[in-house]
Amino acid sequence: MVSRLQLDRWVMMGMIGFVVGVIGFLLHQLIEGIADLKWETTQDILRDGKPALAWLFTSGYSVGFVLFSTAIIIFWRPSAGGSGIPEVTGFLNGTHMRHIFSLRTMVAKFLSCVTAIGCGMPVGPEGPMIHLGALVGAGVSQARSETLNFKLPFFERFRNSEDRRNFVSAGAAAGVASAFGAPVGGLLFSMEEVSSFWTMSLSWQIFFCCMVSTFTTDLFNSAFKGFKYTGNFGQFKTERYILFDIERGVDVNILMFIPTVVIGVIGGGLASLFTITNLKIARVRRRFLARIEAKWKQNVFRMFEPAFLMVIVSTLSIFLPAAFPCTQYTCLVGDATQVSKNCINDSTNAYSIDYSLTKDYTCAKGQVWHTNTTWYTNSTYNELASLLFGTTESAVKHLFAPDMHTMFGYASLAVGLVFYFFFVCWACGTSVASGILVPMLLIGSLYGRMVGLVMVSLFGLHVDKDSYWRWMDPGAFALIGAASFMGGVTRLTMTVTVIMMELTNDVQVLLPVMVSVMVAKWVGDFFTHPIFHAHLEMKCIPFLESEPRVTIMGKNVKLELYSVKDVMSSPVDTVREIESVQHLAELLLHTSHGGFPVVRKTSSGHRVFVGIITRMELVVLLMKEDLFSEGRQRHVVTEQEQEVNWVEYEELLIDKFANPQQKTETLDRYLNQPAYENKYLDLSYYVNESALSIPQRFSLQRTYVIFRTLGMRHLTVVDNHNEVVGMVTRKDLMGFNMVERLSHCLQVTGATR
Amino acid sequence: MVSRLQLDRWVMMGMIGFVVGVIGFLLHQLIEGIADLKWETTQDILRDGKPALAWLFTSGYSVGFVLFSTAIIIFWRPSAGGSGIPEVTGFLNGTHMRHIFSLRTMVAKFLSCVTAIGCGMPVGPEGPMIHLGALVGAGVSQARSETLNFKLPFFERFRNSEDRRNFVSAGAAAGVASAFGAPVGGLLFSMEEVSSFWTMSLSWQIFFCCMVSTFTTDLFNSAFKGFKYTGNFGQFKTERYILFDIERGVDVNILMFIPTVVIGVIGGGLASLFTITNLKIARVRRRFLARIEAKWKQNVFRMFEPAFLMVIVSTLSIFLPAAFPCTQYTCLVGDATQVSKNCINDSTNAYSIDYSLTKDYTCAKGQVWHTNTTWYTNSTYNELASLLFGTTESAVKHLFAPDMHTMFGYASLAVGLVFYFFFVCWACGTSVASGILVPMLLIGSLYGRMVGLVMVSLFGLHVDKDSYWRWMDPGAFALIGAASFMGGVTRLTMTVTVIMMELTNDVQVLLPVMVSVMVAKWVGDFFTHPIFHAHLEMKCIPFLESEPRVTIMGKNVKLELYSVKDVMSSPVDTVREIESVQHLAELLLHTSHGGFPVVRKTSSGHRVFVGIITRMELVVLLMKEDLFSEGRQRHVVTEQEQEVNWVEYEELLIDKFANPQQKTETLDRYLNQPAYENKYLDLSYYVNESALSIPQRFSLQRTYVIFRTLGMRHLTVVDNHNEVVGMVTRKDLMGFNMVERLSHCLQVTGATR
Repeated sequence: MVSRLQLDRWVMMGMIGFVVGVIGFLLHQLIEGIADLKWETTQDILRDGKPALAWLFTSGYSVGFVLFSTAIIIFWRPSAGGSGIPEVTGFLNGTHMRHIFSLRTMVAKFLSCVTAIGCGMPVGPEGPMIHLGALVGAGVSQARSETLNFKLPFFERFRNSEDRRNFVSAGAAAGVASAFGAPVGGLLFSMEEVSSFWTMSLSWQIFFCCMVSTFTTDLFNSAFKGFKYTGNFGQFKTERYILFDIERGVDVNILMFIPTVVIGVIGGGLASLFTITNLKIARVRRRFLARIEAKWKQNVFRMFEPAFLMVIVSTLSIFLPAAFPCTQYTCLVGDATQVSKNCINDSTNAYSIDYSLTKDYTCAKGQVWHTNTTWYTNSTYNELASLLFGTTESAVKHLFAPDMHTMFGYASLAVGLVFYFFFVCWACGTSVASGILVPMLLIGSLYGRMVGLVMVSLFGLHVDKDSYWRWMDPGAFALIGAASFMGGVTRLTMTVTVIMMELTNDVQVLLPVMVSVMVAKWVGDFFTHPIFHAHLEMKCIPFLESEPRVTIMGKNVKLELYSVKDVMSSPVDTVREIESVQHLAELLLHTSHGGFPVVRKTSSGHRVFVGIITRMELVVLLMKEDLFSEGRQRHVVTEQEQEVNWVEYEELLIDKFANPQQKTETLDRYLNQPAYENKYLDLSYYVNESALSIPQRFSLQRTYVIFRTLGMRHLTVVDNHNEVVGMVTRKDLMGFNMVERLSHCLQVTGATR
Repeated sequence: MVSRLQLDRWVMMGMIGFVVGVIGFLLHQLIEGIADLKWETTQDILRDGKPALAWLFTSGYSVGFVLFSTAIIIFWRPSAGGSGIPEVTGFLNGTHMRHIFSLRTMVAKFLSCVTAIGCGMPVGPEGPMIHLGALVGAGVSQARSETLNFKLPFFERFRNSEDRRNFVSAGAAAGVASAFGAPVGGLLFSMEEVSSFWTMSLSWQIFFCCMVSTFTTDLFNSAFKGFKYTGNFGQFKTERYILFDIERGVDVNILMFIPTVVIGVIGGGLASLFTITNLKIARVRRRFLARIEAKWKQNVFRMFEPAFLMVIVSTLSIFLPAAFPCTQYTCLVGDATQVSKNCINDSTNAYSIDYSLTKDYTCAKGQVWHTNTTWYTNSTYNELASLLFGTTESAVKHLFAPDMHTMFGYASLAVGLVFYFFFVCWACGTSVASGILVPMLLIGSLYGRMVGLVMVSLFGLHVDKDSYWRWMDPGAFALIGAASFMGGVTRLTMTVTVIMMELTNDVQVLLPVMVSVMVAKWVGDFFTHPIFHAHLEMKCIPFLESEPRVTIMGKNVKLELYSVKDVMSSPVDTVREIESVQHLAELLLHTSHGGFPVVRKTSSGHRVFVGIITRMELVVLLMKEDLFSEGRQRHVVTEQEQEVNWVEYEELLIDKFANPQQKTETLDRYLNQPAYENKYLDLSYYVNESALSIPQRFSLQRTYVIFRTLGMRHLTVVDNHNEVVGMVTRKDLMGFNMVERLSHCLQVTGATR
């Protein structure tokens, strides 16, 4: 029952998943290695009481790496900057951009991302992982590379735009799956945000791809730390592969939904502020760059901007914590050497902290004493340093921790919130390859924990497992806050919920998470666009939303009231079924249309529409002079021609035309040499007769839906007699274009509609 | 930015979610009440040493309830039988069946389901909950009921087929969400299995609906048990709302994937066997019923079949456990009265059992003794009785329990597997309202636990938390087995994975669950259809798959090689833009088409296609005699007519025509009275000009995809001159129809294609 083609497709999905998984592992290990070295050294220097030296080291280390990170992007492959999510989304919507799927982009993205995040930029690796995954999907499935100039003889059947698109969707999903360890979340992310076309059979294959990807990353991560084998190969310890593991969450209580809604509202508001600030900074930067004339000066600015940012970040990280006192705690110790994880705060004697998560900064390590059979230690730690020292991931891990109610006070949370909110906004627009998914979780968990702390301040500590008020755990609210911020910024619902579940291993808070995401989405929708769509607009990537929305003078236009005639492009360059070579050459040389309607003259004199022929097909046909006939006559297919090698033909179709120079010369020759004046080409065998056409009074709303749902590139508009009167392409249906043409309509017809 | 319509839609989604949630709560409480009463009484009688009396009680109790359950279905509302999933799926695909959305169906389904499951039929309430949810979606959103003969003046704008379809999708999703406590799983189930059309904005709304539904059910379940208030209103205890709560699962190990693949293969195989057996039993039953001539005899058979089944089930439940010895265990007791949950098996001293899950049957309750400060008890339980006494849900809960390696031996698991496999197969085809989702989980967890037990037998017990071999926990394999069986029967992947995660609160075994589901799906695809699709076929519900598959003589037909001409219906009844009333009346009386292409005669003599008018629209127009004109002439719209009350018009369109008798009489009058001979109706204002048409050489594959993707009802086929030559409807694209027509094509053209 399973065809060879289907089997190949599954194998390909497995391969993509595996490669993405390995890349995810390498990325994770490298970032962790670079970050650990930095922060451990800094901590050691601080412990020796030399803050100035610590500052010098941290700044130097960060600036060095970040300069490398930006240099790669600016001088080697500019299009590898940013997260890559808008580019991949745009590609899957039907717009191809140069270089987004080349090997060099991949290398640049990987190196830039690793160094930038490792050295402490407040950004995350998830966005770049999505792009890297999509790159793998595009590269592996096509089994060739233009950069390396090779083409393998496998999987040629996948060299068509539909399969390529599907593999790119799968790769992007696998990227999220690997980065977050969230296979279902990755699948849903690809579905809800990245992909524009989706079928159920595709989702099964992508499911498989995500599974393999997560499995591969988890497997290697379970056995290696900093590329050193740590034993127990194949044993998936939760603390190693579940990013923010929560051992046992809190039971949900109905009262919990009150602060949850508050968090949702704050989340929606802050998320909108975040999006607006982020775009504002990007615009200011762009305007500033536009004013600089010399290209090299622009590059210098773009290169030193992140370095400058890193100097500020390093300075603040080193000196801000000094303003905070050391927080004391008492620990129960297993034996004299090993500190147990259950520590009790000295003053309140009511909550525990996870010793391994805190940072000493300049605070003293306590002494150890014992009573009868048990050992104790009392130590101190610095709250703000625990948030600022390390990657964003480790900070989130601190904040999600349950049963540690007063581990962080208001002051440290507030400072952390301002710090990260501003620097993430800034950093994610600079020239490095970076994403914002984990930083978003961090910002959200900071205000979430603050709300939790307010509850604790108002109603007291409730740590008894069976207490009715046990739900007042700031850790749980940090998790809810993180979900709300991510939901508010991205406006994804299912995806965020499932990712939170997979990230934390905590199914219990599912309902509050859902509520906060939903509320944040509503509030966010009220203020601004989702951030990825805003980025699409900013990067001028033409994107067709799943539902059209045209606003003229602040009012939504009802597209049902207009017809396709009002926005179509007209007149149209058509070709006849048997067309002169010179006319075809002229069309190809002097227009840039991707396809042409083919018409046939009927006995009643109408030139009726019979189908579409693409530019690529015309070029291929025109290169074969033996197909030309003398005068306008039907081409009769001979026995010999019927056995033409179709693979060869298909390859010609798919590859970019190898030598554009030669092509132009040939077409010029046709156009100018009199020998071709009476040459004709019979297109009837090559016309795509399954091209849809619609009448000109067709409702605009429905045109949009059909165009978008079927993922079309050209839609021919005909009149009652089936004569071509216009053409609709992606450009005609873009928002700004419709606004312009419909405004014109409104002026002509008056405001009566 | 949010329109009133959008807001109303969200409110409606919330209302549907709430109502479904309340129904879910009632269903759950009633079932639990009926089941608990039965099994507790039986246990008490057995403890008194009166097995014959126990048998009498159990059989009588079950037969009584089951007779009530079937009587409702057979004598009151036959279409409420079964799970209802095929009917809802069919409706959302575009086929409406009588009675599936009426209030009486709802009451019948609810009562039948509650009594059948409560009294011990080995079926589950999830399928009926999906139907009940869909019913609520259809009923609440339309704010009217034909049964009760009322129509509220609210939400009239939702009385159109698209909104109705969306609310039904939402209701079905909310049903799953409520039954399983799995909001995301419900959403995905609706998307992957039930719905045929889906948009992203819809998924956000359904997400909200599922959330409200789960919340409502959980909230009430947390405070009530058997309708008695148990305190702590609003505190969501995991053991109360997470169906099969697993406190802390096992760490995954790479070696775990070997038995997981084995389980997947077994799952795929057994699931296919299950589907085939289930269909076989259904066919045998149907053939048997067809041989009985008298209707009342048929009803008697259908009524007593489940009763007969229940007698066998009761007999086996009571007497089979007697063949099993009592298993001993030792418990640590908190104080003399309260038994702790941590018990240790006497003989191996290596595993714990959850005392509250076991059933005594006739085994002795042990004595209590103490040493120094701790109290012990040693008791015995019956393994098979622990599986058979109670609902299927409680049996699953036993089997999923981790850290209880040898709680069940091979013998009890094997007997349980055969017992449930056969009786579930049988029971789910009888006349009661019943589903098979939880029974599937039960069957799967039985063989899953057996595989786990094999591991334990081979490699020994490993209960140390840090052991490398800790993953060999039969409880974990039971969970994996359950997922594999559900995946093998339904062929859903994402949904099953997410539902398992939400059902068990265990994210750790995510990867093995995914692998087993995928393997089971592959193996299952090799043997047979998914069960819900098989049920669709068996119930003769026309269903358009998302991708066409036509098999002629064992070979898949490539639909790209055929054109729409090969399957379209032709000739077609068309109407002209200005058509005689008599012709229209004749068409309406003597054909049953749902829509008619409207044509216009052009100056060149062609009758070109201008759009579609539906039967309903024609009927409404024909009832308004003042629209008729004398002779074939254009109707000119007057000032007065422009201000026609459109709401009234819309209502007429949506409602079934109130009085079909009167309609027929009027049409007859038109047709036969000479006064109407020269009356014409100008349809041009009412034609839907945004109806798609395709040329007759259009590829069949692409026709199918367009028809299915856009959810169309009629697709007009035209020739080069835009003249109507055929029509494609849902029926023309059904598999059997295409097979017939394409076989004909093949014979005509020879086997050259």
